[in-house]
Amino acid sequence: MAAKKLKETVEFQIEFYDVDSMQVAWHGNYVKFMEVARCALLRKIGYDYNEMTRSGYLWPVVDMHVKYIRPMVFMQKIRAVVTLEEYEVCMKLSYKFMDAESGTVLTKAESTQMAVDLETKESLWACPACFTEKVRVLLAEDE
Amino acid sequence: MAAKKLKETVEFQIEFYDVDSMQVAWHGNYVKFMEVARCALLRKIGYDYNEMTRSGYLWPVVDMHVKYIRPMVFMQKIRAVVTLEEYEVCMKLSYKFMDAESGTVLTKAESTQMAVDLETKESLWACPACFTEKVRVLLAEDE
Amino acid sequence: MAAKKLKETVEFQIEFYDVDSMQVAWHGNYVKFMEVARCALLRKIGYDYNEMTRSGYLWPVVDMHVKYIRPMVFMQKIRAVVTLEEYEVCMKLSYKFMDAESGTVLTKAESTQMAVDLETKESLWACPACFTEKVRVLLAEDE
Amino acid sequence: MAAKKLKETVEFQIEFYDVDSMQVAWHGNYVKFMEVARCALLRKIGYDYNEMTRSGYLWPVVDMHVKYIRPMVFMQKIRAVVTLEEYEVCMKLSYKFMDAESGTVLTKAESTQMAVDLETKESLWACPACFTEKVRVLLAEDE
Repeated sequence: MAAKKLKETVEFQIEFYDVDSMQVAWHGNYVKFMEVARCALLRKIGYDYNEMTRSGYLWPVVDMHVKYIRPMVFMQKIRAVVTLEEYEVCMKLSYKFMDAESGTVLTKAESTQMAVDLETKESLWACPACFTEKVRVLLAEDE
Repeated sequence: MAAKKLKETVEFQIEFYDVDSMQVAWHGNYVKFMEVARCALLRKIGYDYNEMTRSGYLWPVVDMHVKYIRPMVFMQKIRAVVTLEEYEVCMKLSYKFMDAESGTVLTKAESTQMAVDLETKESLWACPACFTEKVRVLLAEDE
Repeated sequence: MAAKKLKETVEFQIEFYDVDSMQVAWHGNYVKFMEVARCALLRKIGYDYNEMTRSGYLWPVVDMHVKYIRPMVFMQKIRAVVTLEEYEVCMKLSYKFMDAESGTVLTKAESTQMAVDLETKESLWACPACFTEKVRVLLAEDE
Repeated sequence: MAAKKLKETVEFQIEFYDVDSMQVAWHGNYVKFMEVARCALLRKIGYDYNEMTRSGYLWPVVDMHVKYIRPMVFMQKIRAVVTLEEYEVCMKLSYKFMDAESGTVLTKAESTQMAVDLETKESLWACPACFTEKVRVLLAEDE
């Protein structure tokens, strides 16, 4: 049986400033879309960027992968589903971007973040309890 | 007789990611071009962003005006001339963007920054000596 | 008696990628916020970017002015009110950005756009009827 | 014996607007740095974006991977080396970003582009000769 995973969904629209001269969302702007989805999931977990700082950790992105399947166009409504795939060794998220109306999958992506101690600037080789405990509470509630 | 003014010139190129779906540099990206020119002039004065912080002041932009005359297009080489128009009450800069080859003027702009004390967070109603002295030294050298 | 004017209100939030190293929204990103507000008003008028193209005109921004009063910070909710100040000679909009909760005014701005004929590439010295008629219909409805 | 590969090197500097509230270049801006490097290599090959369009093909990015090793900071000089790893089935590039002075590796990345016929909008399952011939000429010259 597949383990349950935390997810969040956000919707947004492609703006004029997102579009390049080929009339599609510029591929680099997807990193912004990923960040919006990630922040929504972290808020749901109760561990947003401000809480990260308060807990004494930074969480830099150490790896990012984007697979572009179909383009996004100006004024298109997009739905993003972000899933917490791994939270013990590192924070690994997967992203699926779809046309909000048809559900057609447009893009898949992944990002990995690692905790860094704000004082010592050292990377942690396991996620700190301040984060994993919040995840476990939410996962337990979902059952 | 017109007073002498400090100036700096930078050149750059319009990148693919600068261009919008109308095939011209998106008008919001000009703020980046202004920042590149401004940083070059501040380095010449010996008062770059790092030096600002060391001197105990922030210099937020409080006013910005851009007059778009002719579009910039992908791969176009642009020359920007930035001039320190006012440095005693506030730091006011003017910008002129030209096609680097023909010299045709494409855009004119202005920005105004005011000093803010890093500790008290209060705005200063005159520029601090750490900045004005550097300007006067350079102006004197030019004579 | 002051003439009635078309207005639209949008709300948005300051994202992590909007914030600079001084912990406030980078001043250049306000041009994106203005564009989001402008697009909302143009949709209300029934003259969005796609309709502009269909009607045979481009509307480049020819002038932009931003007055920064108070900073915007990460995760702050912002309300923008955009007003059509002038629609006969050119399309001139004013913008007021406020903290969405307290209503405190943070920024004021203006932008001016002029119609350009898509075929001849010539600027028009008056707004075309395809736009002004839509505005007049909405203004009449409001009465 | 390893096959020879086409390479290009560019240098650039981290600007104020590239930096996020953690005082490092925002991870999404690396996509811009990759684009600058890629455009330089494509110019060297004689197949820049304008030439792509003239040849009847678009080359959308279909896959992107970035591995962040060490942060980039404001005003840091960066050297990027971009290598054409694959040019027959698709255009696959690898990128290495280093501190320009010390040579310390900061980031590694890859991008994959596929040719799309401008008229039929269909993806090609092999790179068109207009591109591969230019690559072969350059590779032969290098010997």
